[in-house]
Amino acid sequence: MVKSKPPRDGRPSRHRSVRHPGRHRHASRSAAPRDGGAESGHRPGDRWLYGHHAVAAALGNPNRRPERLLATANAAERLKRDCPDAAPEIVERPAIDAVLPPGAVHQGLALLAAPLPDPSLEDLLDGLGADALLVVLDQVTDPQNVGAILRSSAAFGAAAVLVPRRHAPPVTGVLAKAASGAIEHVPLIEVGNLERALAQLKKAGFWCVGLDAAADRNIAEVEGDARLVLVMGAEGSGLRRLTAERCDILVRLPTDGPVATLNVSNAAAVALYALACKRNA
Amino acid sequence: MVKSKPPRDGRPSRHRSVRHPGRHRHASRSAAPRDGGAESGHRPGDRWLYGHHAVAAALGNPNRRPERLLATANAAERLKRDCPDAAPEIVERPAIDAVLPPGAVHQGLALLAAPLPDPSLEDLLDGLGADALLVVLDQVTDPQNVGAILRSSAAFGAAAVLVPRRHAPPVTGVLAKAASGAIEHVPLIEVGNLERALAQLKKAGFWCVGLDAAADRNIAEVEGDARLVLVMGAEGSGLRRLTAERCDILVRLPTDGPVATLNVSNAAAVALYALACKRNA
Repeated sequence: MVKSKPPRDGRPSRHRSVRHPGRHRHASRSAAPRDGGAESGHRPGDRWLYGHHAVAAALGNPNRRPERLLATANAAERLKRDCPDAAPEIVERPAIDAVLPPGAVHQGLALLAAPLPDPSLEDLLDGLGADALLVVLDQVTDPQNVGAILRSSAAFGAAAVLVPRRHAPPVTGVLAKAASGAIEHVPLIEVGNLERALAQLKKAGFWCVGLDAAADRNIAEVEGDARLVLVMGAEGSGLRRLTAERCDILVRLPTDGPVATLNVSNAAAVALYALACKRNA
Repeated sequence: MVKSKPPRDGRPSRHRSVRHPGRHRHASRSAAPRDGGAESGHRPGDRWLYGHHAVAAALGNPNRRPERLLATANAAERLKRDCPDAAPEIVERPAIDAVLPPGAVHQGLALLAAPLPDPSLEDLLDGLGADALLVVLDQVTDPQNVGAILRSSAAFGAAAVLVPRRHAPPVTGVLAKAASGAIEHVPLIEVGNLERALAQLKKAGFWCVGLDAAADRNIAEVEGDARLVLVMGAEGSGLRRLTAERCDILVRLPTDGPVATLNVSNAAAVALYALACKRNA
């Protein structure tokens, strides 16, 4: 279960229809692109994607506008299998190291690309089916965790991950690498007001399932015959009271023992699996 | 589900009985302690544990021999709640930064401690019940992933994690931090020959469940009425052929979509949950 399929070029994504390349969600509030960039206060390297899966998936996404593609000779060879049309500049590793944050595990591949426009919540809801699954992350900001959660969301069929704008993780190369291509398929949507977004979701027929280590009920008790949204809080402090109150049900994972909790991305993966099993039951 | 319970001082661990503080597993092959240390080629900082949960759990483990405990005033205050007997040297943050690897998120707390002696496979098997669950990691070496897998193993009741000696992850502060205290409860056991260890486990009544993205069967099909061992390969390359052949059953997680695989620690968490559900069914 730890072997990634290569992205299939040209294959229509379930979620691609809700993207709006011509509109930029942030245009009204800031000129800073969401992927970072010098203007937004992130390092310039933040607009670079790196690693085989992240880069191959981005090249396979027609909504991406690649600006520069750097590859070592070996990495270019491997990339050609997944993306036959890619035409990278062949460089030595130090040229790639130079454009990325220190220590980035880039596998000889880096892509400078314009940020992806993400849909509004309204646009997203328009395109969803009766068994849709969404994820809300309240104050989970570590880019590696958010990236891994996007990856698990893609794997278990969740349509999007929602985050409050004020606690949104920066969409950096680190996040994209951890997402292993999932950011091309599962939009990370920033919402201005989380309580209002949850109300909007409920109105659209979603059942809000909050994950809370102190809950009495087991996640296996959730009924799978509704649209579901998994709501998770920050590692350590958990769900905020106000957010918990907006949930229709609070559930825990059936963990036990001296260390009874999981890393937040691990907890999300388990919860997504548990909810996906319900939907398919 | 992302809030850690503090370790309970004095509470006997399920696994503590199989530890042998007087014996050092590595004595016959090297003088290097398993947690690193100057002799083993790791940085000297590797013998330091850091972060609240990792340090509090180590202080609560009677098999640990603390050598030095550094804390900022605030961290010492917080530590006192979980470990009332702890007597840290109160220092400023830079003194802690200085003994740890760059960028370590230490939360104002660092503990220098002798490495934990781990049991042999024979000693471990002696103490296990009829519904025991174990994990085998074949070539998973990233310390953050292995730490998170130890944490999930503790949460879902797995008794130990086995790794081949030649591909064992170094037990560093990074691993211990990601394990969030779980290394005090779930031993990480190095075995000389993985195939032989799997044969030994089968002889002891274990059913070997290999996780393989290419398998036809769903993990939900595994029967829960035996001792189980979850066998996982490296991220990217998956289970090696020889290891897969030693498994009684190969199963996949029911993932789908354009990114059909999970991060290895996320896959382990989901698989442990799925198997734990079977055991408790």
